[in-house]
Amino acid sequence: MDLKSKFMEVYYKLKSELLNDPAFEFTDDSRQWVEQMLDYNVPGGKLNRGLSVIDSYQILKGGKELTEEEIFLTSALGWCIEWLQAYFLVLDDIMDNSVTRRGQPCWFRVPKVGLIAANDGILLRNHIPRILKKHFKGKSYYVDLLDLFNEVEFQTASGQMIDLITTIEGEKDLSKYSIPLHHRIVQYKTAYYSFYLPVACALVMAGENLDNHVDVKNILIEMGTYFQVQDDYLDCFGHPDVIGKIGTDIEDFKCSWLVVKALEIVTDEQKKLLFEHYGKADEASVKKVKELYKTLDLEGVFADYESTSYQKLNKSIEAHPKKEVQAVLKSFLAKIYKRQK
Amino acid sequence: MDLKSKFMEVYYKLKSELLNDPAFEFTDDSRQWVEQMLDYNVPGGKLNRGLSVIDSYQILKGGKELTEEEIFLTSALGWCIEWLQAYFLVLDDIMDNSVTRRGQPCWFRVPKVGLIAANDGILLRNHIPRILKKHFKGKSYYVDLLDLFNEVEFQTASGQMIDLITTIEGEKDLSKYSIPLHHRIVQYKTAYYSFYLPVACALVMAGENLDNHVDVKNILIEMGTYFQVQDDYLDCFGHPDVIGKIGTDIEDFKCSWLVVKALEIVTDEQKKLLFEHYGKADEASVKKVKELYKTLDLEGVFADYESTSYQKLNKSIEAHPKKEVQAVLKSFLAKIYKRQK
Repeated sequence: MDLKSKFMEVYYKLKSELLNDPAFEFTDDSRQWVEQMLDYNVPGGKLNRGLSVIDSYQILKGGKELTEEEIFLTSALGWCIEWLQAYFLVLDDIMDNSVTRRGQPCWFRVPKVGLIAANDGILLRNHIPRILKKHFKGKSYYVDLLDLFNEVEFQTASGQMIDLITTIEGEKDLSKYSIPLHHRIVQYKTAYYSFYLPVACALVMAGENLDNHVDVKNILIEMGTYFQVQDDYLDCFGHPDVIGKIGTDIEDFKCSWLVVKALEIVTDEQKKLLFEHYGKADEASVKKVKELYKTLDLEGVFADYESTSYQKLNKSIEAHPKKEVQAVLKSFLAKIYKRQK
Repeated sequence: MDLKSKFMEVYYKLKSELLNDPAFEFTDDSRQWVEQMLDYNVPGGKLNRGLSVIDSYQILKGGKELTEEEIFLTSALGWCIEWLQAYFLVLDDIMDNSVTRRGQPCWFRVPKVGLIAANDGILLRNHIPRILKKHFKGKSYYVDLLDLFNEVEFQTASGQMIDLITTIEGEKDLSKYSIPLHHRIVQYKTAYYSFYLPVACALVMAGENLDNHVDVKNILIEMGTYFQVQDDYLDCFGHPDVIGKIGTDIEDFKCSWLVVKALEIVTDEQKKLLFEHYGKADEASVKKVKELYKTLDLEGVFADYESTSYQKLNKSIEAHPKKEVQAVLKSFLAKIYKRQK
């Protein structure tokens, strides 16, 4: 059986345990509700974050085959990250008033769900400590896992906060946007939970103390930043058929790497154009902004950023004293370098 | 200095620590946002839940004066409960589309806040493990506190879920309402965090293992149920000037103790009236329901419930082997018996 099928099997087991959690007396209706809510929101993504816990752990263990128990436990941690992601997405979609997610209507737009989705988000979040307690209570590293998930969730919510308050309706102000602000949002909102958390889970399960791995954290945060810059780039320059969506960062007044980079290099006249047309929904405005990006050769600027960033990351990775840790980090980097989607 | 002022001093200290948390790099704007959000949502309630941690701990310690450190730590746990409550209220108000809370507009109705309030709710929730880590990491009972807050939050969110899905718009159906359903909603949505959690915090800090106190938990859950039944009663029969609000449970189709009790004792004809008029906003319908409650002598039924419940609780408390635990439970009961608001 392939890894993904094994991973899905663990999902069904965890779901069944949650639906029979003795800490709550389900009614039939509420058990059915939670089951549908989980199936709708948790397993429908690419599962990269979750699967990478298993990968990373195996590499840390020198590549030797994992026992059934190790596969189960690393999968359970992987699913905790997928649950965390589902929780953020359900709530983000409400706050952004989004329409679709992973090719289906956002959960809060499903008939009968509406704002109950906010409580469902909370439930998703609460399932994580239930899973951890059921399968890790008694392990020496149980409290480290609780601390880790708590800290990363806090950082993600804090990053989301700066993102939200810099784009408050009626206070849209391009002059607030800068590379340091972009970096801060990306680092906290995305990099911690998408890049650091999977590897940190694997390290903790391998018996490592995370306090000794601040360098690993820093490398993964930089990798996450690089990943998000790619995302910002592809939103405008990627092919819709390849990236699977039509980018709307310009219309949405997003603090994208492209706009902060543009602001760094524009002439006064170009700046005026950007201030006038960025964040407007009409086609003509979007076209003007895209033309400016072309004029500024942001494609070239991005290509430079990509190769510089890649070299820097590689150098940092090679400076790490442990071969196994190097291998984990290189496998992450290989997955994202020069990606087209 | 009185206890409440000391308690407030701890609030200012905790707030200041959170605003300088090294796990996140605040921008000036975001630090200011969090400070306003905390001041608006956390300390404005009656603080009964929070203060009762200090009380309970002191009683458990035989009434002897607490050290400065004990006062600080019990206050910090008390504030964690107030933070938890603030988190639930901010999100509940969004889901219920409420207008006011504690005499001011709901947080999500404050200009510029809007649905950012959902993320603020998440932040409030995330502050709890930050406070616990800062002040309890290293204590032998640190992991017990994390488990306790996680379990109680899970139970509260689960109770909220049954409440929400039984009142889904367009599926209002009185025949779903019953005493067991009412009891289940109340137990999970209110009793665990309002009654069990403060005492459980005090027990944990006093070095007790909560597994040995299932009887205490059961008594507090029953007390919480009794408290909520009073609340349901006062919503209809309490004096608006005394309870500080105009009850709208009938208009809102709430699964109130009054309506489930009425359903138990109505004739077929009265039942028809209830089905027709319960959950309607017009004055005439509300009046008809209230008249039916009078006809059914729900005031008398409530008085019976209140005295039976009080006697049962007292008996359970007196059966407890430890005098100090008895004293804690009796002090809780004394605070709520025959309350008018």
